[in-house]
Amino acid sequence: MKLLEERIRKDGKIKGGEVLKVDSFLNHQMDVGLFAEIGKEFKRLYDGCTVTKILTIEASGIGIACVTAQYFNVPVIFAKKNKTKNIAGDVYSSKVESFTHGKVYDIIVAKEFLHPEDKVLLIDDFLANGSALMGLITLVREAGATLVGAGIVIEKAFQPGGALIRDQGVRVESLAKIAAMSETGGVTFCGA
Amino acid sequence: MKLLEERIRKDGKIKGGEVLKVDSFLNHQMDVGLFAEIGKEFKRLYDGCTVTKILTIEASGIGIACVTAQYFNVPVIFAKKNKTKNIAGDVYSSKVESFTHGKVYDIIVAKEFLHPEDKVLLIDDFLANGSALMGLITLVREAGATLVGAGIVIEKAFQPGGALIRDQGVRVESLAKIAAMSETGGVTFCGA
Repeated sequence: MKLLEERIRKDGKIKGGEVLKVDSFLNHQMDVGLFAEIGKEFKRLYDGCTVTKILTIEASGIGIACVTAQYFNVPVIFAKKNKTKNIAGDVYSSKVESFTHGKVYDIIVAKEFLHPEDKVLLIDDFLANGSALMGLITLVREAGATLVGAGIVIEKAFQPGGALIRDQGVRVESLAKIAAMSETGGVTFCGA
Repeated sequence: MKLLEERIRKDGKIKGGEVLKVDSFLNHQMDVGLFAEIGKEFKRLYDGCTVTKILTIEASGIGIACVTAQYFNVPVIFAKKNKTKNIAGDVYSSKVESFTHGKVYDIIVAKEFLHPEDKVLLIDDFLANGSALMGLITLVREAGATLVGAGIVIEKAFQPGGALIRDQGVRVESLAKIAAMSETGGVTFCGA
């Protein structure tokens, strides 16, 4: 997606070779106009897949998922990272390793919102090692729902997550795929 | 907002007198069609206030804030609950007490995204004791930005947050104001 690649080149900041900061438009400050274009592109890619639910993970996936869901006309569910008093015991859960925060945490979805008849599209901002996306896939499988695929805004294709998940037969559509990046050389996109 | 009150009556679940579960449409599963109506209503209420930024807090405020921001045509910033490796030291911070989780945590916003010339609208899903909203107000004041007001989806008017914050001269618009609720008697809205 050209618009997104241009925005990453313009406003993305590379820190230490593996961290791409896009917090001016994607995951801290959020450009909802850009999100609308992202949502339309996911709709174009997954049109005709009769998606019934969009599943994402808190926190930075939620905004993109909600704007995208407007084009699919379906509800969004966000997997929660902590079990709170407000969620009853009937949850699907899986484990996610965060390399950014250096810890493993549980993600949960209330069983009442994911059913075997659901066709689920996963949405997230980043795909790198694939841990968050694998956690979401596990939740969908636990529910016995159909996994339509995943819509990712930025994939770090030089990290193993994308290959790992596609090798399982899961459709993964990434709007910007980064082949390589460095503080001196900037970002190189796949196919560029 | 009639549509919202009807939805709360229909799908809200009261637990133990003080907890209103609206996780089937507001803060776990999210009805983005409803969010669009909520966003239009906030736009109607704050039209002409030349809002430049919407500020919310992770996680459940993000979806509502992003859909609302489409009507204002401004970016959303969400205050983060934990300092991560991906955010540099230049942040505004304040403390929030969570009664749901029983702890106090820091919320932060990168200084580069909030400026003295900004006119900020706060958006959140709930207003009860007012701790989260006070935390956001503190961030806006630290930045020297103008606080336009707050847009709240559900206010528990029987808890002190709303009065506390309005007494400071802050404009607070709540789309559903709950005067009282109980497991047996259901929800009573203010003015009903």
